Amino acid sequence: MTAAPTRQRVLSGMRPTGPLHLGHYLGALKNWVTMQDTHDCFFMSADLHALSTSYDDTGGVRAARRVNLAEWIACGVDPARAVVFEQSRVAEHSELHVILSMITPLSWLERVPTYKEQQENLSHKDLSTYGFLGYPLLQSADIILYRAHAVPVGQDQLPHLELTRELVRRFHHLYSCQVFPEPEAILSPVPKLSGLDGRKMSKSYNNALMLGDSKEDVKKKVLAAPTDPQRIKRTDPGNPEVCNIYAWHKALSALPVVEEVAAGCRSAGIGCVDCKKKLLVAMDAILDPVREKRAELVNNTALDDILVEGNRRARTVAHETMEMVRDAVKL
Amino acid sequence: MTAAPTRQRVLSGMRPTGPLHLGHYLGALKNWVTMQDTHDCFFMSADLHALSTSYDDTGGVRAARRVNLAEWIACGVDPARAVVFEQSRVAEHSELHVILSMITPLSWLERVPTYKEQQENLSHKDLSTYGFLGYPLLQSADIILYRAHAVPVGQDQLPHLELTRELVRRFHHLYSCQVFPEPEAILSPVPKLSGLDGRKMSKSYNNALMLGDSKEDVKKKVLAAPTDPQRIKRTDPGNPEVCNIYAWHKALSALPVVEEVAAGCRSAGIGCVDCKKKLLVAMDAILDPVREKRAELVNNTALDDILVEGNRRARTVAHETMEMVRDAVKL
Repeated sequence: MTAAPTRQRVLSGMRPTGPLHLGHYLGALKNWVTMQDTHDCFFMSADLHALSTSYDDTGGVRAARRVNLAEWIACGVDPARAVVFEQSRVAEHSELHVILSMITPLSWLERVPTYKEQQENLSHKDLSTYGFLGYPLLQSADIILYRAHAVPVGQDQLPHLELTRELVRRFHHLYSCQVFPEPEAILSPVPKLSGLDGRKMSKSYNNALMLGDSKEDVKKKVLAAPTDPQRIKRTDPGNPEVCNIYAWHKALSALPVVEEVAAGCRSAGIGCVDCKKKLLVAMDAILDPVREKRAELVNNTALDDILVEGNRRARTVAHETMEMVRDAVKL
Repeated sequence: MTAAPTRQRVLSGMRPTGPLHLGHYLGALKNWVTMQDTHDCFFMSADLHALSTSYDDTGGVRAARRVNLAEWIACGVDPARAVVFEQSRVAEHSELHVILSMITPLSWLERVPTYKEQQENLSHKDLSTYGFLGYPLLQSADIILYRAHAVPVGQDQLPHLELTRELVRRFHHLYSCQVFPEPEAILSPVPKLSGLDGRKMSKSYNNALMLGDSKEDVKKKVLAAPTDPQRIKRTDPGNPEVCNIYAWHKALSALPVVEEVAAGCRSAGIGCVDCKKKLLVAMDAILDPVREKRAELVNNTALDDILVEGNRRARTVAHETMEMVRDAVKL
């Protein structure tokens, strides 16, 4: 047994479904990087979860996992501080999942709102599988396997966390023990940014700025993006509030720049291209170093070493937890 | 990778729910012992399965597991030939279960006949859990994790084996591979023996001859057992066909003895006590050596060494299989 961690422990993960974009950076990675200063962090590539919706098309999982891990590190995740690991390489996730499955009422899983929702959203796929029904349970195992105190979640993930908390209470009650903290939500205010065309940001819509995009691609995408449709000529004053580029400025640019482009737009003092060029400055400031580091890492064996070590560190904690679980269950 | 086994591989297991009786010996263990000469045998204490029905009362699992393993060996299971192991100590069972769960339609599990049946039989327990619904899937994982060619099963277990075979075909189809043999049933003709009082043999009815019963206990139980209720006096002729003791003779005694007691009963040539004493000879011939070896093993550290080695050997094969599975799934 190691000493209790002095800092609160946090677990977060991403499903390796493809390369990441600026939305992932702003919505998750930026937060992960900050949390490294205050929390004991475990960041996992949730490759088993990728199977739950993509069991019939797994060809991209390995590549996505590797690229994502490189992208995390390129964005500032520090494997010397955070434990960066691959879910499927830590067998204890599955072990704990199976033990928890024995005490989990089916109805608890059937009532998770995302269950029916996702089945409807992904109605072209056959998701009436045992594994898909159980994926919030696997998430619970992921979290409590590291005895995490907290989980950064979006509003839509709160029911999953509530399930985890209920399971922790049920486990403690059934086996008269105290093994797991009841994990708390860290609800971070995430800027809800749309893609450059105003639709949901997604690689497949080609409206997202991918972390791997070249400087030239970024420029092309931004310059081609629609702005206030009422502002037809350069001399027309515009309305920043209906312009998606302005939303991006608010997320990325320094406050004086944000105020400057808003005023310039309303007075027709600057044109949309000028405004976009100012946005590109902010984007490049983020993306230039990430792009470079990402390319450097993705085909480098140093990444393998990082993962071997991360998986090892994850397993050490997971193993400890499973000893406690087996003791509690008397298995 | 080790070389392919030259003999067909067999997986069988028992849930550690309590000490074993003569019914377990005749119905399973005797068969296991024989199979060691012809098959590459894996015998597992299915302790995770014990949780599926007893998650709320796990206090006896460890003791039952240990006693059962001692009992198997006392009955002739040879850990130098068969791989004798504990399911919960081989994480790969859970790993394969989770991966299979992703490709298993819920309807396949819901239609397994034992699912509704057992829920009704055990209606005093809350078995509407995720783990209970999934236990035939865990069984499938148990079998194919060792790439077993065959499984000794009773008639009632055939739907479970059919599920396993369907899963194997689905896995091979989805991932364009050939990893697992489609396991065949070994339907062994098992004498369906009732307990000494004619009801289902069970420790809780006190109508079973436990492998751990003392010689004196065995004698007492047999002498107290009912016989042909129409045979009231010693001089009344009896009908062996309605006598449960005669059923036991047929299962345990040599043919001449069986014929002798049948004739003696019909002619009132022997009394029930004489008949029972002849049965005791056959019972003691089985139970005396088992009782001794069992007592010798159960509190002996040699049993721990046997399990360490058995679990290690099981893990070696399981690990190989999981490498093949991860390759196939591209995980």
